Amino acid sequence: MVKAAARQPVPARRADAERNIAAILEAGTRLLSADPAASVAEIAKAAGVGRVTLYGHFPSREALVDAVLDHAVGMADAVLEDPAIDTAPAPEAMTRLLHSSWEILDRHRRLFLAADRVLPTERIREHHDRPLRRVERLIARGQDDGDFRTDLPLPWLVTAFFSIIHSAAQEREAGRLAADEVEQVLVTTMLSLLSPVAG
Amino acid sequence: MVKAAARQPVPARRADAERNIAAILEAGTRLLSADPAASVAEIAKAAGVGRVTLYGHFPSREALVDAVLDHAVGMADAVLEDPAIDTAPAPEAMTRLLHSSWEILDRHRRLFLAADRVLPTERIREHHDRPLRRVERLIARGQDDGDFRTDLPLPWLVTAFFSIIHSAAQEREAGRLAADEVEQVLVTTMLSLLSPVAG
Repeated sequence: MVKAAARQPVPARRADAERNIAAILEAGTRLLSADPAASVAEIAKAAGVGRVTLYGHFPSREALVDAVLDHAVGMADAVLEDPAIDTAPAPEAMTRLLHSSWEILDRHRRLFLAADRVLPTERIREHHDRPLRRVERLIARGQDDGDFRTDLPLPWLVTAFFSIIHSAAQEREAGRLAADEVEQVLVTTMLSLLSPVAG
Repeated sequence: MVKAAARQPVPARRADAERNIAAILEAGTRLLSADPAASVAEIAKAAGVGRVTLYGHFPSREALVDAVLDHAVGMADAVLEDPAIDTAPAPEAMTRLLHSSWEILDRHRRLFLAADRVLPTERIREHHDRPLRRVERLIARGQDDGDFRTDLPLPWLVTAFFSIIHSAAQEREAGRLAADEVEQVLVTTMLSLLSPVAG
């Protein structure tokens, strides 16, 4: 390690590796969002790196898909930044959050399917930790304001959000939900689930 | 093929193969329901067959898990047979169906997790085709009787059932839902989702 570092300065090697990793993650996000079966070779080619280089960073297709999902969710989370989600009445904020979440998920739903084929649901959920914290914060606020039910545990309601929106991606891909009905179905489903029990 | 058949009569070979397959599926169901990471070698040993024999029937761990899941769901479906599900008022029938579905799923939740690690959700759902037809029939009856909502598509409500009950298995395994609260959470969640919109 020390000798190799002496031959080639560490910063240059690192910059090179970081450039390659960034190109691989970008190509992986693009290709897997178009075709969940995209191969490692195709992703390496699109990233302009050799397969050996790619495998040097991601030793298996599973490791690559895992990293691409993490990258894509990271970018998606930034898009979800919307002050209204913390200030609008909770049901309206939930409607907005579902709208933007679905917009992003729909665009990347094949990447999600690629991940679903090789990763446990638990792992996919871990990658969604940051966006799900937004969901949790919003549901907790709705519970405090009396807009959302309190007779079901908060973590369960967050799980239901995750599970319902990802089911919609599956249903959309399988052709069991039409493009133009998904958003309304999601809003109706989540608000029914979150509404306080009458009486 | 013809020569091999001539050396050993086909019915005997078939009976042998069927006995081995049955032993493998039984052992697979038992071991994977205890430990989702149970290996092919462990399952072969518990079934009393060699690894070569097992791989002759199931060429990969994925193929084995797929067959075990199909076997387990087939057995589970028989347990769901309950005349009250077709006759009791729909909300009561849904409560009963959730009770028996959860009882079975909870017992086999680690097998479900093993399947989740290697099979796409779409494939896992295909294996649940028969029990989900019971769910569909019941929700359709509830819609006809005015007990369940009609403003969301029937296939979506069936998907929500599948997705909610399997999320509960994940949450239970992750320790985010306690054993004694799952059933009530499931009933409350599904009935909230199915109730007709007031007014």
